[in-house]
Amino acid sequence: MNYLKLSNCELENELKILLEKFEEIKKQNFRLDISRGKPSQEQLKLSLKMLDLDITKDGLDIFNYGILCGIPDARLLMSVILGCGSEDVIIGGNSSLCLMSDVISFFFTHGVNNEKWDINDTKFLAPCPGYDRHFALCEHFGIKMIPIKMNHDGPDIDEIEKLVSKDESIKGMWCVPKFSNPGGEIYSDCIIERIAKLRPSSKSFRIFWDNAYSVHELYEKIEIKNIFKEIKKNNNENLVIAFASTSKITFSGGGISAIGCKGDNFKSLCKHYSFKTIGFDKINQTRHVKFLTNSAKDIEESLRKHMLKHSEILRPKFNLILEKFKLNFCKNPILSWSKPKGGYFISIKTFGSAKKIVQLCREAGLVLTQAGSMFPYNLDPDDSMIRIAPSYPTLEEISKATKILILCIKISAIEKLKNHAS
Amino acid sequence: MNYLKLSNCELENELKILLEKFEEIKKQNFRLDISRGKPSQEQLKLSLKMLDLDITKDGLDIFNYGILCGIPDARLLMSVILGCGSEDVIIGGNSSLCLMSDVISFFFTHGVNNEKWDINDTKFLAPCPGYDRHFALCEHFGIKMIPIKMNHDGPDIDEIEKLVSKDESIKGMWCVPKFSNPGGEIYSDCIIERIAKLRPSSKSFRIFWDNAYSVHELYEKIEIKNIFKEIKKNNNENLVIAFASTSKITFSGGGISAIGCKGDNFKSLCKHYSFKTIGFDKINQTRHVKFLTNSAKDIEESLRKHMLKHSEILRPKFNLILEKFKLNFCKNPILSWSKPKGGYFISIKTFGSAKKIVQLCREAGLVLTQAGSMFPYNLDPDDSMIRIAPSYPTLEEISKATKILILCIKISAIEKLKNHAS
Repeated sequence: MNYLKLSNCELENELKILLEKFEEIKKQNFRLDISRGKPSQEQLKLSLKMLDLDITKDGLDIFNYGILCGIPDARLLMSVILGCGSEDVIIGGNSSLCLMSDVISFFFTHGVNNEKWDINDTKFLAPCPGYDRHFALCEHFGIKMIPIKMNHDGPDIDEIEKLVSKDESIKGMWCVPKFSNPGGEIYSDCIIERIAKLRPSSKSFRIFWDNAYSVHELYEKIEIKNIFKEIKKNNNENLVIAFASTSKITFSGGGISAIGCKGDNFKSLCKHYSFKTIGFDKINQTRHVKFLTNSAKDIEESLRKHMLKHSEILRPKFNLILEKFKLNFCKNPILSWSKPKGGYFISIKTFGSAKKIVQLCREAGLVLTQAGSMFPYNLDPDDSMIRIAPSYPTLEEISKATKILILCIKISAIEKLKNHAS
Repeated sequence: MNYLKLSNCELENELKILLEKFEEIKKQNFRLDISRGKPSQEQLKLSLKMLDLDITKDGLDIFNYGILCGIPDARLLMSVILGCGSEDVIIGGNSSLCLMSDVISFFFTHGVNNEKWDINDTKFLAPCPGYDRHFALCEHFGIKMIPIKMNHDGPDIDEIEKLVSKDESIKGMWCVPKFSNPGGEIYSDCIIERIAKLRPSSKSFRIFWDNAYSVHELYEKIEIKNIFKEIKKNNNENLVIAFASTSKITFSGGGISAIGCKGDNFKSLCKHYSFKTIGFDKINQTRHVKFLTNSAKDIEESLRKHMLKHSEILRPKFNLILEKFKLNFCKNPILSWSKPKGGYFISIKTFGSAKKIVQLCREAGLVLTQAGSMFPYNLDPDDSMIRIAPSYPTLEEISKATKILILCIKISAIEKLKNHAS
């Protein structure tokens, strides 16, 4: 049934049926929160063996103070994930967001390239739809965000080139280059090459390269261009600061995080951390190294094997939603949706009724990410985008949740179409 | 032998003997670093059982995202250490220094009490001798430090009252109230009461109450006045932000840290952390709770039992040094020294030759904390103070190290006395 071709009367009839179903569902007291990209219990179990490893046999030094940038093997592990050299890695605590916040804060208080960011006049380019916590961090620091259109192959690079070349107050840009949050976009070679060539008018402009999903394929292996090789080629090594963590590899509450960066960035961030701490948790670093790698040579292969187990758990969940969307909307163009090849989210583009859908779902017990949150200042210009996080619930829950979601999408679309028609 | 009563000739003879001994020692290739307060291997072993605890039996939620301020039981544990309510506690990562840095940075970028600290004009009161990392953190942020004399019962409170009442640019003060680093001073009731009554002219003045050694007795149990009760009594609850960690309770490289603070401080710091992270490592929090407490009621008692084991390891090390000092210097007043009842350090006051002694010791293979480092900007006005950290080495190593140190103290004193005499 294509709602766009229905008469007002037909729409009314359909709406009546849907609303009856909706009332029934509301009575069922369903409760599920799929607002955040939380790994499921099953995924967490994949790493529980890490707790049983003997981490004392190489001595007790890891239990004591010291080793600011992290133990060498952990730096090597994270360098594989980040795509840089192990000598470019600083290991952090359990949160890469925390490291991003540290870096931003540090650039305000201490500056970069001998220039402090101006707390009253700093702007970031924000490809959107994007990650709500990136945007919230900017807002928290009073950083003005300039929305950049996200295309299927990455952010609008023409616009980016134009903006950074003329506006010195633009000091940063968010990038989630692989399986972008929430749309799942993969930056193309061409986009990454052009990003690496950027010559911003501000010398303290930095790209926050959040490689959160670098090994998080759902199907076959996908390689993106290595940003560190590209910036080296272009003699532009200070441009990029990369971040990653094992939050979605081992434990989302107790992984390890890392910064990868070169030259001046590395030197100044190391110096900063040398005042801030004596060193991050090497016990957890050691556990991760022992659990995720057999030897320095096979890190990629053992990571791949481990991540395959994640994908086997996640894939059916994504597939279920995608199939139901196809079934319901392939001939009813009131919804389009992303078909992610990895990462943690499906994003949907509704018929201009994101807020309404989120509200209806909530009434039926299904909590979605707040509408608008994938845009700076929560401003979705078309009120159309919603993020779905399929990872945490069981297949059964997802099945139920998808039914509710589809119902609410349809109801809100008819209400919209009726208004248009009347 | 009292050097002060020797003739120049006698001094020369003594020096000759000492220098011969010194040359002999140099040949022995001794190597020991007692510059930092690192727990010993034996101490680290006290907590290794923590690694074997089953932390999965209450479910896997601790392995997932969430719970910003820490799990309730960990907040309760740290509230006992901090002396505040568990509702006042924010649990951090493995480093309390990191939390202090966060708070300072936050007050510059976001302010406190609706007022941002001025990056170009912020001062701290720095009781000294004090903790070198506190001072380094201030220097790193460009905070100007005003030295405050440390007396046996705490910092010079008259001076503090005078300064904070008249200078609005004074925004903070460092306090290590129990077993102060490095002198081991214990703040008296009277000093704590007067600190709690401070009415600084700046409303954004905060005391950084680093309760690093609150349960770290070497001999009998010592209670200091509870700062949180005092500020409450004085309707002054925004004055204090307290810090602590389990670095010297469990693992110095992998403990948990915490902030304790009330009202506005708590609210604004929670808000800040809500942008910075989704939550700190709850796996490690759980391990600590399970290892250090049996039930919520007996936290103090089980902490005490655990810390007794530390004191049994540390006490002989401190005693050995203190006895040798007594033997060598009770009738030769070229040295005075602290007799700490807890904490991690012995501080010595030399005959105005701290730099020389540190240098001589280094020549003999013994690395001490840099002379001057217990003072802001490394400026020890009398070049007299040296910090000794007895925790890490074995008793045998300490015995050797103390011999070297005493020899170097004597040599440097004679050289000084000779110069005076000549």
